[in-house]
Amino acid sequence: MSYPIGLPLEEARNLILENCIVLKSERVVLEEAEGRVLAEDIIARENLPPFSRSPYDGYALRAADTMHAGKENPIALKIIEEVPAGYAPKKVVGIGQATKILTGAPIPDGANAVVKFEDTKFTAETVVLSKSCHCGENIVPEGEDIRIGSVVASKGMVLDSAFLGILAGLGCTQVDVVCKPRVELISMGDELLPVDAPLAPGKIRNSSIYTLASFVRRCGAHAHCCGIVHDQEQLIADAVSDAAKRADVVLTTGGVSVGDYDKMLNALQILDAKILFWKVQMKPGAPFVAAVYQEKLILCLSGNPSAAAIAYFLLGIPALRKMQGRNDIELKKIQIFLANDFKKASPNRRFIPGRLEVREGRAYLLQTEKQGNGMLHPLHKCTILGELPAGSPPMESESLIDGYSLFE
Amino acid sequence: MSYPIGLPLEEARNLILENCIVLKSERVVLEEAEGRVLAEDIIARENLPPFSRSPYDGYALRAADTMHAGKENPIALKIIEEVPAGYAPKKVVGIGQATKILTGAPIPDGANAVVKFEDTKFTAETVVLSKSCHCGENIVPEGEDIRIGSVVASKGMVLDSAFLGILAGLGCTQVDVVCKPRVELISMGDELLPVDAPLAPGKIRNSSIYTLASFVRRCGAHAHCCGIVHDQEQLIADAVSDAAKRADVVLTTGGVSVGDYDKMLNALQILDAKILFWKVQMKPGAPFVAAVYQEKLILCLSGNPSAAAIAYFLLGIPALRKMQGRNDIELKKIQIFLANDFKKASPNRRFIPGRLEVREGRAYLLQTEKQGNGMLHPLHKCTILGELPAGSPPMESESLIDGYSLFE
Repeated sequence: MSYPIGLPLEEARNLILENCIVLKSERVVLEEAEGRVLAEDIIARENLPPFSRSPYDGYALRAADTMHAGKENPIALKIIEEVPAGYAPKKVVGIGQATKILTGAPIPDGANAVVKFEDTKFTAETVVLSKSCHCGENIVPEGEDIRIGSVVASKGMVLDSAFLGILAGLGCTQVDVVCKPRVELISMGDELLPVDAPLAPGKIRNSSIYTLASFVRRCGAHAHCCGIVHDQEQLIADAVSDAAKRADVVLTTGGVSVGDYDKMLNALQILDAKILFWKVQMKPGAPFVAAVYQEKLILCLSGNPSAAAIAYFLLGIPALRKMQGRNDIELKKIQIFLANDFKKASPNRRFIPGRLEVREGRAYLLQTEKQGNGMLHPLHKCTILGELPAGSPPMESESLIDGYSLFE
Repeated sequence: MSYPIGLPLEEARNLILENCIVLKSERVVLEEAEGRVLAEDIIARENLPPFSRSPYDGYALRAADTMHAGKENPIALKIIEEVPAGYAPKKVVGIGQATKILTGAPIPDGANAVVKFEDTKFTAETVVLSKSCHCGENIVPEGEDIRIGSVVASKGMVLDSAFLGILAGLGCTQVDVVCKPRVELISMGDELLPVDAPLAPGKIRNSSIYTLASFVRRCGAHAHCCGIVHDQEQLIADAVSDAAKRADVVLTTGGVSVGDYDKMLNALQILDAKILFWKVQMKPGAPFVAAVYQEKLILCLSGNPSAAAIAYFLLGIPALRKMQGRNDIELKKIQIFLANDFKKASPNRRFIPGRLEVREGRAYLLQTEKQGNGMLHPLHKCTILGELPAGSPPMESESLIDGYSLFE
């Protein structure tokens, strides 16, 4: 069986994306739609606001009546009606007339301007103005927010807090969204123990899978941890085959390096899975296998916690976004300053996890204090990956580098 | 009844915070702890890693044996054992000996350095080095990540993806976290209709409460919408009283302005609630009532969608954070550049919602294209509030202004 080895990151990602399809959609109530991806265009079936309204408490009137109003020439108008928010005006405002109107109430016919309470003198019967107003003043026109027939939200958009309210305002109580990808996570390695087991010589706990599962959930997918599989080809093959029955994506950790005990490739061959590639030209995260088995994507990450997370960010997130039908599949590229010196040279293309920190208007990539290959600490509050091209020397703080925003 | 009117924002916030207590804690399984606030210090009961280990596939040896190794003077060591990850070495490495060791495996006694496979020539019996190595080389020492007895995570910390894995690595399967505040949301106004009702003259839909509820959930609280209450004092009082039975915080919208139909203050007086203040010196969001009723916090926001959200960000989020026992109660203050011209002068202290956008290393506050008082669009992807001090002139883009990060 032949497959490419050591691909550039972009080629690796494209191969993965070519093997992702957008999942089917489901109808959910609006309350459950936050963070979900729209599977339909939402067209406004009405104007928002549905009528011209007053943004203030005041008096609705005919602007022409106030044309000659001034401090020396106050104009008195007769109050013919009072309209609170939620009620429809009954009377047409005629020449020399005004309607008392509360914030949010509809503008009565005949009126074409509103003057605020505090800019008038008034009694129960009469309002007096000493300033002219112009046509349209203090009126929020019908459809100012959203015009009937317009596309309010497009297929592929992630619904955020604001759009839940915007869709509710148009009478949407349910929306079509793309189903959440189901991700099954398998931890591989003879060294792994369940988290609740007592330690034994040479063993460590199956811990970093909790972090990966959490990152998977933050990308809008379901994450389920299947537990630990030992370093035997047939056991691994069985576990992947079983997980693939329930999953859209199987994510594994461990067993993809060059060591004698790295059995993932052999297990995939037992399954006759289509191997897309092995290894990516980057550091960390180079050990990586992508495959397709029974139309399910199999992404095999390093057993090293930081390396696994970084490879997941760069190759897993775009796949999960494509499956969710998102418009923006790629991680958003930005340029940021290094907050810390980066003391190592980078013979290979390198990615650095960190958090975005804003200082005096500048955007910095801030690394955690604890740094180490086998640690999870570098992923604490991680929102950004910095990128150093292959051949980069050690970099000083304040250097401007490329980066990727992970959770936008 | 007397209460302060028109407080500066900081005084208003302090009054609210004085009336918040940290909620009780509950024990949850680690999988459900993401985003929750720790109610206990987590002390490491073991080292992480629990033993010194090799970060590479290679050979464990005694550095002293390689002292004179060189291209002209290769040194041969006898391989006495092979240790994969997950297994304990059985033999002590003596003079002239080496143990084949796989990534993650424990360093055998006697050895004090590891040389990578690719830096050696080897057969099944012998490994040959042509370079010396130093004591400790390629060894991850026991406890490098976390030392036994150290405080790994402190009370008041928000558990993120990385810390789920870190705690799992220490054998924590459950943690004490502070209970989520229960927030009941009440929408007030005769103009409001349920989202699924047909429109009627003068009516709009009860939509912005969906956005507020979503923002409340993003702050780690439970949010429950109680529906619409009409502008009658007794109805409002009954609704608040009922909601307070189930809630830690009651959040209302509407009825807090100076209009004739703004009944919130009267309703609170019917309940004999303790009113903390009315109105805040800011724009938008100035109409605001804070009160305490039966030891529950009552926060009454404007009926204007953007104003309600901005007041919730500045006054509601700190309250919800304090109730959750967070270390960082205040919104994080930053300085950012305006991406757009802000064309209005600001006689009052003003807050501008927008999103953080990074361009060439600079952090910008980017406002949405659609801007309007009654709209929800300005809250789309909102992660930042910009601040303009009272008396600010119109501001040009690229001006550096203060801001607050909302969701860190």
